[in-house]
Formats: sequence, structure tokens, C-alpha cells
Amino acid sequence: MPQKAKLTPIPSGTVTSPKGFFAGAVHAGIKYQGEERLDLGVLYSEAPCAVAGMFTTSRVKSAPVVITRQRVAGGTARALVANSGCANACTGEQGLADAREMARLISAPLGVPEENVLVASTGVVGVPMPMERIEEGLERIALARDGGHEFARAIMTTDTFPKEVAVAVSGGGLEYTVAGVAKGAGMIHPDMATMLCFLTTDARVEPGFLRRALKRAVDLSLNMVTVDGDTSPSDTVLLLASGLAPTPVGEIAGGSTAGRTFQRALDHVCTELARCIARDGEGATRLIEVTVEGARTVREARLAARTIAGSSLVKSAVYGADPNWGRVVAALGRSGVALEESRLDVCLGDVCVMRDGWPQRFDLERAREALRQKEVGIGVDLNLGRGRGVAWGCDLTPEYVTINSAYTT
Amino acid sequence: MPQKAKLTPIPSGTVTSPKGFFAGAVHAGIKYQGEERLDLGVLYSEAPCAVAGMFTTSRVKSAPVVITRQRVAGGTARALVANSGCANACTGEQGLADAREMARLISAPLGVPEENVLVASTGVVGVPMPMERIEEGLERIALARDGGHEFARAIMTTDTFPKEVAVAVSGGGLEYTVAGVAKGAGMIHPDMATMLCFLTTDARVEPGFLRRALKRAVDLSLNMVTVDGDTSPSDTVLLLASGLAPTPVGEIAGGSTAGRTFQRALDHVCTELARCIARDGEGATRLIEVTVEGARTVREARLAARTIAGSSLVKSAVYGADPNWGRVVAALGRSGVALEESRLDVCLGDVCVMRDGWPQRFDLERAREALRQKEVGIGVDLNLGRGRGVAWGCDLTPEYVTINSAYTT
Repeated sequence: MPQKAKLTPIPSGTVTSPKGFFAGAVHAGIKYQGEERLDLGVLYSEAPCAVAGMFTTSRVKSAPVVITRQRVAGGTARALVANSGCANACTGEQGLADAREMARLISAPLGVPEENVLVASTGVVGVPMPMERIEEGLERIALARDGGHEFARAIMTTDTFPKEVAVAVSGGGLEYTVAGVAKGAGMIHPDMATMLCFLTTDARVEPGFLRRALKRAVDLSLNMVTVDGDTSPSDTVLLLASGLAPTPVGEIAGGSTAGRTFQRALDHVCTELARCIARDGEGATRLIEVTVEGARTVREARLAARTIAGSSLVKSAVYGADPNWGRVVAALGRSGVALEESRLDVCLGDVCVMRDGWPQRFDLERAREALRQKEVGIGVDLNLGRGRGVAWGCDLTPEYVTINSAYTT
Repeated sequence: MPQKAKLTPIPSGTVTSPKGFFAGAVHAGIKYQGEERLDLGVLYSEAPCAVAGMFTTSRVKSAPVVITRQRVAGGTARALVANSGCANACTGEQGLADAREMARLISAPLGVPEENVLVASTGVVGVPMPMERIEEGLERIALARDGGHEFARAIMTTDTFPKEVAVAVSGGGLEYTVAGVAKGAGMIHPDMATMLCFLTTDARVEPGFLRRALKRAVDLSLNMVTVDGDTSPSDTVLLLASGLAPTPVGEIAGGSTAGRTFQRALDHVCTELARCIARDGEGATRLIEVTVEGARTVREARLAARTIAGSSLVKSAVYGADPNWGRVVAALGRSGVALEESRLDVCLGDVCVMRDGWPQRFDLERAREALRQKEVGIGVDLNLGRGRGVAWGCDLTPEYVTINSAYTT
């Protein structure tokens, strides 16, 4: 019996922590020409990568989503160019040409086939990509083995901190790393391969399993985050596997112990990124974690958890540390999941406010305190079945409105 | 050929404008014991009324919804007792007993069978109804022919103004009135018989048609309002027809000219109330009217209009008068309705910002001005079919958050 593989978080890990990945970023002045903020980045793998992707389910898709989706279907990727400040969405044929051109501009210097370069953009919709600044910026980008941190900052829009996670897998004949960066902040809602998220690993993974593992990890994590119920035409999640790690030598496949370990590592990275995104929701001061148990099915548990996490009234109450738990029940009620009021248990943090459908006497000050934590737990038990789901959101604050009332101007 | 019936708005009209209706209200101190605000009201008809109702689609239903729905199924009503400050929801068996008791308390003095008395409550969830104050308050209520205004104020919670509409129908052998009061403010979302809304008419209407007419009017109006995406367990719309108007003598039935006129009057009253509710959304400074045309179907047009009207990002942009029209397109995209980007037209007020899927050059200042109006129009033409839908919402303001961050406390 081989020893079980261990997951060890890598402090300050980033998307270039796995072997073979390089990245870099520059300030190209795509939107903010005054400020010296990074807004254009490149991620590169020295070996061809197996690639999997998930994209927005919106009927309006940005040009980079259209192009990248086609290229991911080819199964191999070598590089990614990403920018913030301009989404290149609602830009018609010109937008598609611009997205292709962004990829072409780095394919030659990197010596990589054009169709192995992916593109992702985030920012304002309906504005053409400033291609001269892109071209000029790409010429200046220097790639480095520790360039992941700069890359992570280049994709930020209203994010207040870069979101980077990496985990080392070791033991049981395994020795590789899984990492990811994400940008979130606004237009974040579940059931869409949410926001921009780029994952890398140096494990060698069987392509079919890579796709399935990504879908599972995203469903559990990024698809369970809601900031404001809005979804972007740019949402993109990519997973690149370089295969440069020393072990395992062969491909990791589904249904194996190594496959389960890989899934566990990927779930971990995606879940941590999801939590970062919720915590950094526009204007947010608190992370809300909603756990629904006892649902008839997992699907219903997730739906209920997301509905509660997405309720403007719940979010406002958390902001004000107001233990108005009726709103949790109201959101649960409108979610449409099966419930029997007389079986409902509801908790705010560790304060039980409803049991078997009955309002409980509770210590108001303790309940307020539970809502004042940086991470606020809301727990519901439907006591009907074994379905369980966790969703993440954030409080709704006056600052959210302020940020979003003057985004373009 | 009889002359066509005319609809004439009645200035200061209210729910007691139609013949035979009386109302009154008192301050019972249900929630606010310091302030002298009305919070308990009774509406009474001197003749038995045909009644139709629509109720919340939430799986969690308040006790008054459970009781009133049963009684409306009986087809006849004489009186309604309504309160604000306590929703009597999530209150179990005791809540049901309390709702029945509220009805019983007025049935005897009014000389009306208990099962002909309806109940509606709005306010905080999970708090038992203070029955002593209810009983004491009901004893003090004096009914008057012009008591509708007081009744309208008694059902307000965070509403900033009472919502009352009445219209006189005359000509073509018709002479009657249709009126309504509503309360809105928060927890307002479509596809739920939204909020509390009580409609009265002195027309004599065939009961089957009364139900169909109510459903049609609500689908076009109250179900097209969204304030915050949340739905209450208390949502109730009731329509009482006393039949005391002089003409027509017989019942108004569907499929007739008189039926179409009644529908027109009812649509008008419900639409005006819907607009009032949107305009008075919690913290709102502006009414948003979203019109979607050219959809494949009416259903899709309505869905698209409501999705845009409900987008937190669109609502925030309107608050800031920021012509960030990409958010309109993003909301449209995630609504799931059929669209071809290359056919899309989008307008902010009368400023066209996208035509045939192409961003238009537009005068930024004029677009800002369009978003600064008290009533902001957003127009979308999908250019795919003939489906048309109108939805109403309001801007999202820091004030919304402030109101909802300290509602119970």
C-alpha cells in the first residue's frame, strides 16, 4: 500500500509555481493611462500543455471567449495572453480579428503555433481593443519563472488584491504542483464558468480526465460564488497541464488513486480561489459561506445555498450585522427547492435561530457577533435527505453601489 | 354601434372609490410603538363580493397567505383585515390560529361570515403576531366611505408614499370604477403575485372571468416589477368585485366588449400600481422602464426585460447616470433568450448606443442626461420576432443597503 499523497499549500505560490511555466506583465495603458497599473500579461509553458476550459454560458460571448473556446477544443496550448481594462465584447468582427491578432503578436517571438495561444480579456464592454497599445505592450513583456504574481495583478479590475493559490502534491509516487490565479470582483454569479481563472499544473494528465476534473472542481467552487447575480460575456476558466513534473511518469487518469488525488488538489485550488473572489466582491467587507444540508438532492442543496448567498436582503443584513434570519428563510422559500417548514433548522454562525420550523429564543448580541466576523457562516438543514451544498458570497455595501455607479466614467 | 367606453383616472382615487366599499385604519403599535403610524386596517364591502386572488410562489408561505388562499377559493369575500410590522410568517400552527383569529375578531361586529373575511400581513418574518394589540386595535377601527387612504397607509412598511390608483369607466352602457392600493418597497421580484395589492371594483363580473382578468393584469404589471430579486412569503393580490355599480346590470363576461373594457381598466390600475412600486423601491431615486421588442416570443421579451431591470450592475449604473450600456447587453446575454448579436439595437432614453450589434458613437452628455431623468427608459430591439415586454425596476443606491442593513433592529 503506497503512502497517501499529501497536499501542502505553497506560501506565495502562483500560476508559475508548477514546472515549465513562465509569465510576465506590463502597464500597457489599456484603460488607465495615468496610473501605472499592470494590465497586460502573458503566461507561457515551455512544453506543450494539455488544456481544458470552461466558458460563460451567456448568449453574448466576448471575442476572446469565441476564439479561445475554439482553440481549447484542439486540446493543446502553449501560451495565454490576457488583459484588463477592455473586455473586447460586443465588438463584432473587428473584435474577433483583434483577439486573433493579440495571439498572433506573441506566437512568433515565442515560437509557438498561433492556434496554441489563448486569449482572455476583462473590462468595459463595447469598446474596441486599443491594438496599438497592446502591440507596444506585448513587445515589452519579459517572461520569468516567478512572473505569476505580476500576471495575477495584470488581470485585476476592481479587485482589491490578487488571487493566487498553489498546492504541492507529494507522496504515493506523486510529485507535482497545481496552481491558479483568478480575478473576480463584479459580475460574479454561479453556473457560469465564472470570471477569469487560469489554472496550471505540471502533472501529466489524460486529456479527457483533465476536462472532467475541471468541470467537477468548477461546479464545486467557482460556480458556487455569487457577488451580484450578474454574469460577464468574458467568463473563462482554463487549466493547462505541462506534464513536466517528475512523477508520475505516465498520465494521471480518472478512476485511479492518482486521479482522485489530482481532483482533490484541483478542488482545493479552485475552492480557495472561489473564496478569495467572494471575499473580494466589489465593496464587500465580509465573506458569507452558506451551507445547506439535508436537501433531497445535491442539486437542490446547491441551488438553495446559492439563492441564499445571492439574496440582496441577506447580504444587506450581513453588512449591518442584523440577525434578520427571516430573510434566509424567505430566500430558501423562493429558491424552489423542496422543503417542509416544520423540519427547518437555521443557524447564523453557531447561533441557532430556527429549529424544526420554530423561531428560537437566541442571544441577540451573540447573533450580531456571528455576523460581524470576517467570515460569516449561515447554516440551513432541510432535514429531508442527504444533499449538501456550499456557496460563497459577500455582504452588500453602499460601497458596491458607489463602485458600480461610475465604472466607465 | 355603442360609443366606446372611456377610462378616466380619478384624482385622489382609492380602494373605497368603487361603490359599497368602506375602510379604516388605526395605529395598533404592532412594530413601532413609539411612532404614531397606522399599521392595522380593515376593508369592507356592504355587498358580498366575487373575489379572485394571486399569491406568492414561495415554498414558504405566511399564515395569512395559507388562510386567505383557502377562503378566496370559496369565491366570495366581504372584508379584509391587513397589517404591517409583522408578517406572521414562519410562525407555525400558532401563526395559522392567529391569522384565523384576526379574521374572526372583525367577522362578528361586521356581521359577516368568518370564511368571508380575508387576512394579509407584511413585515418582519419569524415574529409571532401581537394578538392583544391586534384585538385592541380592531376594536378602535371606524369604517368610512373615504377610509381607503388610511387603509393604504396602514399597509406601508418602508414605502415612502401610499400607492393608490382609481379609474372611472363610463360610456357604452358601462358606469363603474376599478381601484387599487399596494405596498411595495423591498422583497419585490417578478413571477410572484408580488407584495400586497388589493383591488376593488363595483362592476359585476363573472367569477371565472374575474380570475382570468386578474391573472392577465398581474402578469403584465405586478409580475414585471423587480426591486431586489427577493420574494416575500406574504405576497398577495386580491380583487373584490361588489357588483353595486348601476351598469352593466348583468355580469361582465370574458370575450365581450365589456370584458375587454374591464380588462383594460384593470390593466391600467395594476400597471400604475406596479410603476409606483418600482419608483418607491427601497432607497430608489429613479424608476427604470425596460422595453424589449423583437423577441421570438412574448415570454422571452418579458424575461429579457425583467433580467435587465433586475441587474444590480444596470441599476447601479443608472444611479450614477453612467451610460455603461455593456451591462444592458451582458444582462440580456445571461437572460438566456434567443438573440443574434449582429441584430441588436440598444437605446438609453432616446440615445441609441448600439445598432445592428455595433457600438454607436453617441453624445456622452446626452446619454447621461437620459439616465438622470426620474423615469429612465432602456430600450432593446432583438429584431428577431414580434415579442414585446415591459418591466419596471429602480436604481440601486447606497440607501437601499442602509435601509436593509438594519431592518429588524
